[in-house]
Amino acid sequence: MNKINGLLGKKYLSDYLKKSDPLFERFLKKKENESRMNDPLDGEIIKRFTEVAKLGKKIRGALVVLGYQIGAGKIDKNIIDTSLFVELFHAGVLVHDDIQDRGDFRRGLPTLHRQFEKLGSKLGVTIDKYHYGESIAIDAGISAYFYSFDKLLKSKFPQDRLIETALLYSKYVQRVSDGQSLDITGMTSKKVEEKYVLTMLKLKAAEYTGVMPLLCGASLAGMKDATRLKAMEEYGLCFGWAFQIQDDLLGLYGNEIELGKVVGSDIKEGKNTLFTFYLSKHGNKDQIAFMKKTLGNQNASRKDIKNFKRILKETGSYDYVIKTGWNYVERGRKQIPYITHDRKIQDILESLIYYMMERTL
Amino acid sequence: MNKINGLLGKKYLSDYLKKSDPLFERFLKKKENESRMNDPLDGEIIKRFTEVAKLGKKIRGALVVLGYQIGAGKIDKNIIDTSLFVELFHAGVLVHDDIQDRGDFRRGLPTLHRQFEKLGSKLGVTIDKYHYGESIAIDAGISAYFYSFDKLLKSKFPQDRLIETALLYSKYVQRVSDGQSLDITGMTSKKVEEKYVLTMLKLKAAEYTGVMPLLCGASLAGMKDATRLKAMEEYGLCFGWAFQIQDDLLGLYGNEIELGKVVGSDIKEGKNTLFTFYLSKHGNKDQIAFMKKTLGNQNASRKDIKNFKRILKETGSYDYVIKTGWNYVERGRKQIPYITHDRKIQDILESLIYYMMERTL
Repeated sequence: MNKINGLLGKKYLSDYLKKSDPLFERFLKKKENESRMNDPLDGEIIKRFTEVAKLGKKIRGALVVLGYQIGAGKIDKNIIDTSLFVELFHAGVLVHDDIQDRGDFRRGLPTLHRQFEKLGSKLGVTIDKYHYGESIAIDAGISAYFYSFDKLLKSKFPQDRLIETALLYSKYVQRVSDGQSLDITGMTSKKVEEKYVLTMLKLKAAEYTGVMPLLCGASLAGMKDATRLKAMEEYGLCFGWAFQIQDDLLGLYGNEIELGKVVGSDIKEGKNTLFTFYLSKHGNKDQIAFMKKTLGNQNASRKDIKNFKRILKETGSYDYVIKTGWNYVERGRKQIPYITHDRKIQDILESLIYYMMERTL
Repeated sequence: MNKINGLLGKKYLSDYLKKSDPLFERFLKKKENESRMNDPLDGEIIKRFTEVAKLGKKIRGALVVLGYQIGAGKIDKNIIDTSLFVELFHAGVLVHDDIQDRGDFRRGLPTLHRQFEKLGSKLGVTIDKYHYGESIAIDAGISAYFYSFDKLLKSKFPQDRLIETALLYSKYVQRVSDGQSLDITGMTSKKVEEKYVLTMLKLKAAEYTGVMPLLCGASLAGMKDATRLKAMEEYGLCFGWAFQIQDDLLGLYGNEIELGKVVGSDIKEGKNTLFTFYLSKHGNKDQIAFMKKTLGNQNASRKDIKNFKRILKETGSYDYVIKTGWNYVERGRKQIPYITHDRKIQDILESLIYYMMERTL
């Protein structure tokens, strides 16, 4: 047996990107042109949206394709294009997320509401420019949600599957929205229970990133086997947790240039993660006091972030998070034989979930 | 021939409300419970959303039913429930609209972002409460968009019609979003061209209120006759214009208690309407200067609003707007024989468009 690693998974994702990126940009270009027909400003808004949207890693889109492959036993020529519906939604929800988090950068570019703030100044709008930027970004996000349905429901799969998939997708998005509200509230109020943090992370991260796209792909393939679907769901949940955990790790210990955002910004934004969750249970009084002081402090210095990271190591929070991530990888792996007997797809599933904890981006 | 008036149309709308309100609330109660299973806070958010949402006039929902009636020649028992998909969207987009306009009241209740601002204080959130309120309201709006697809795609109509309807709906929402961006930008920058204002009003008001729901209803009925659909579209556009014009009239000359909002708030928010559009073309230098000073001035006094209204009368802007509204009613009426030969439905169509200019709410 070969040593397992994330290379095959990484390649699966990069192959997907190579094939899907031109389709993604072509679709959005069409939307930009449609909007430009209404007014040049509307075209400009979608153009800016596209510039940020197209830089996504598109992990969820790739999982739709993989879910389809599992269900159908092969790749359909339409599935890559169709899979982009989740990426259109994702791009939209990140725009709204950035408003909510007051984020300044996304993928190395100014966030959309920041871009529209500048645009507003150029246009000479008279209200508060920041609010103007947020308002236009709200509209761009709304458009993206509806692009998503446009992409999905215009695709060439059987209509019963399209409807089933749209309903599945819609169900999980409603849960994302619930999770996001918990996140925003938890970030900003100091008392947060274990169940609360875990529910929040499950809804807005694990289910959304792993379960939703895999099941949507399977649904597009018309897969009905309840046992296999159950195993896929469980794998997807573990995948999503591993993804989120690595996201949180990279947010603190990753490479700023590669990530396109500032290390430690999660701390400044006051985000609840498994890190803070563990720290609040296992830190001593001083460490917890420091955490509460620093978490959500927009003016936290580089030194504060460094201290925060030191405390995470000292308390074992860092080790706990890494261990938890790899535990999810192991749990997810165990589901693979129940998902498919196709050895090639088994290898991809295995490597992909490894890659979630190995990736640097 | 009887004298035409809005009574029959008013009754059509109130009958629709009577039948659809319990279905609307039942659906949202189910959603509230689902969210409450995630966390009590999520349930609370949807509960608040429902309290505001259920007070809507539901004109668009009624038009979906009417469009269906025209296409199918009868009412299907499922159509009233299904028609609520447009109202779920509408409730969501008003939440986002209120954030964008920084509105304080909606239908006599505090707007959702204002309600969540208070809730945030109660929960002890540490960030800017207003921003917290907006952020949670963004999530509530997103949920509503997906409720809308949930309602539509789970309904019992043939799947090809559901997909066609969802795509139609989605197309018009994308145009609403474009129109809304134009509105926000136009409100806040002083130089606005004729084409710009008319495009904005068409996209975000006339098409959305009149054309979209009628065509969606016809699509659910499987109506394919291009000539009749074209006439419906034209009638819908006139209907939507009349609706919007009366909305603007009521916003300035209506009854505050009945409307649940402050007369003149459109002026304070700086909204471009046919009023301001006419005034900017036909006012004298002083009148235009006063308009520019007052439009968008959040601190405009009651006296300023009164002067604004006086100028609208003096310049003929008031008469122009009323005349334009009634012209649309006439134009819409002319389409009715091409839409249907059913005399009963013809009478409803005629009375409804009249009612748009007669309504006081």
